[in-house]
Amino acid sequence: MKKYTVAVVGATGVVGREIISTLEQRKFPVCKLVPLASERSLGQYVTFNGESIAVQVLTADSFENVDFALFSAGGSISEKFVPEAVKHGAVCIDNTSHFRMHPDVPLVVPEVNAHALKRHQGIIANPNCSTAQMVMVLKPIHDAATIKRVVVSTYQSVSGAGKEAMSELEQQSRVNLAGSSAEPEVFKKSISFNLIPQIDSFTENGYTKEELKMINETQKILEDSSIKVTATCVRVPVFVGHSESINIQTERKITADEVRDLLSKFPNVEVMDDPANGVYPTPKEIAGTDPTYVGRIREDLSIENGIELWCVADNLRKGAALNAVQIAEALIA
Amino acid sequence: MKKYTVAVVGATGVVGREIISTLEQRKFPVCKLVPLASERSLGQYVTFNGESIAVQVLTADSFENVDFALFSAGGSISEKFVPEAVKHGAVCIDNTSHFRMHPDVPLVVPEVNAHALKRHQGIIANPNCSTAQMVMVLKPIHDAATIKRVVVSTYQSVSGAGKEAMSELEQQSRVNLAGSSAEPEVFKKSISFNLIPQIDSFTENGYTKEELKMINETQKILEDSSIKVTATCVRVPVFVGHSESINIQTERKITADEVRDLLSKFPNVEVMDDPANGVYPTPKEIAGTDPTYVGRIREDLSIENGIELWCVADNLRKGAALNAVQIAEALIA
Repeated sequence: MKKYTVAVVGATGVVGREIISTLEQRKFPVCKLVPLASERSLGQYVTFNGESIAVQVLTADSFENVDFALFSAGGSISEKFVPEAVKHGAVCIDNTSHFRMHPDVPLVVPEVNAHALKRHQGIIANPNCSTAQMVMVLKPIHDAATIKRVVVSTYQSVSGAGKEAMSELEQQSRVNLAGSSAEPEVFKKSISFNLIPQIDSFTENGYTKEELKMINETQKILEDSSIKVTATCVRVPVFVGHSESINIQTERKITADEVRDLLSKFPNVEVMDDPANGVYPTPKEIAGTDPTYVGRIREDLSIENGIELWCVADNLRKGAALNAVQIAEALIA
Repeated sequence: MKKYTVAVVGATGVVGREIISTLEQRKFPVCKLVPLASERSLGQYVTFNGESIAVQVLTADSFENVDFALFSAGGSISEKFVPEAVKHGAVCIDNTSHFRMHPDVPLVVPEVNAHALKRHQGIIANPNCSTAQMVMVLKPIHDAATIKRVVVSTYQSVSGAGKEAMSELEQQSRVNLAGSSAEPEVFKKSISFNLIPQIDSFTENGYTKEELKMINETQKILEDSSIKVTATCVRVPVFVGHSESINIQTERKITADEVRDLLSKFPNVEVMDDPANGVYPTPKEIAGTDPTYVGRIREDLSIENGIELWCVADNLRKGAALNAVQIAEALIA
């Protein structure tokens, strides 16, 4: 079996570390792992298959003989170094938003649109975490009943903002429980025992960039710009796991039972929907696992052809590392 | 000035205590306060205008010479004792769901439908906390542009479930931060650093009772059953303050600026909407205050006539105690 040299850019970040453990867990055929990061991480090590590997400083020359480069170090790093990696012949899987809407770059969730990988020119984009889990649910419903409009409100964990954000939630919570308050640093406002209705920066129309990603990326992945989406993205005091309250209006009537049936047959979606027995997904319960979980499936009382549901997934896995590794797996299959 | 004897049923609960402090803060003309509770609270005292008053055990005879009885001790207590209070000539303001949808009982948010008080027959219902703050926002928009449909997702604090729920969030958070996990008692699942997409019990159509309250009570308060509402209610690890992501579809086009203008003129609504400068409401910031706060007002990109907004209010105040006292104030005005 052919083995590959895999570079991980942003190897010491919360997603980078998850990519490395996902490569290991899924036994991706790696002959050499190249962990790359900024100078700040110099002297750090990552562990892969029991081996301790020194983190290297990212430069334009880091990609010699690299087969796959998985980027998760911010948009500006991808902007600068993805073209360098492509020049060296590496196939780049980029977890930032930088290339996602570029017409020549496939934006892929393998269960949904793996076919789009065929047209890649060295770069494949990994969708926004909130979008990835949502399209897993929308795809089978769209195929069966044609989605007209989606109204989504998110409940996004702090790990989506990186490890400093996770520390801030932890530290602020401790301070609050001791009866004091702490100044926010990573977030704009206090996140402990609070909610922040802002993820990423604001645009002129009043939506945040995160909300526009959910709109634009959904249309691109489902390859249908007639699907209208509106989104409100909210940060919640949860460490890992994004949750979404999704309202779906379809062209044709679809029942809650049909949706349950469709979703339970869709790969890597798990229906957890037995409310009478307290069965529905919550982020704390599913953190650290791979599937996209769906519960609270019911027919919308406010319109003829509507479905309400609750979707939860580990944002570091399906929303980031897992999807990126799945893309690499699909490419070598 | 006439003064009134006011009984508070459930006086030692989180809402009961808030009612007593609200009566004091707003200088409601009380000649005698009668704090009532179950036998469990015997021996406890409440403080009102600097005076310590012994809590009395609630019985059918507790309402002699009572002018106003404010109930907040659960639906079964209201079912049993509200009729007793009415028999004694007291006007009852009931914070439970028991009488809310009864055709002879006005369901009132004074800023929205104070006129409905005129037809009361001794009982006035206080709406569900999530509904109260939502109708404050919907009313001026409905008057201006006729609301067709509302899709709401809530982010509800634990204080809505009582003081034991607040203790559970606090204790569980401490245990988690110490590296352990704790069994849930008040809630069905762990609430610390987690979300629970269930408030109240489930009904046959898959909605919870809390969600159906938001649908039915909104139509009753706005006196328009043509307003279609769908809701998803979620408990979040916040102590005080309910937040709502509200999507509103109107008959006529209304701009975000018009909505800002209408809401800023509506009594007891505060527009906090300058996202470029980080101005939007969060529950921790507004806990302990009276207004209903609105931010993130924007025109919905998915439909012609749609508005997205984010609404936050103190669920113990506008959602409960404040609204109940406002009803009493309107009755004596």
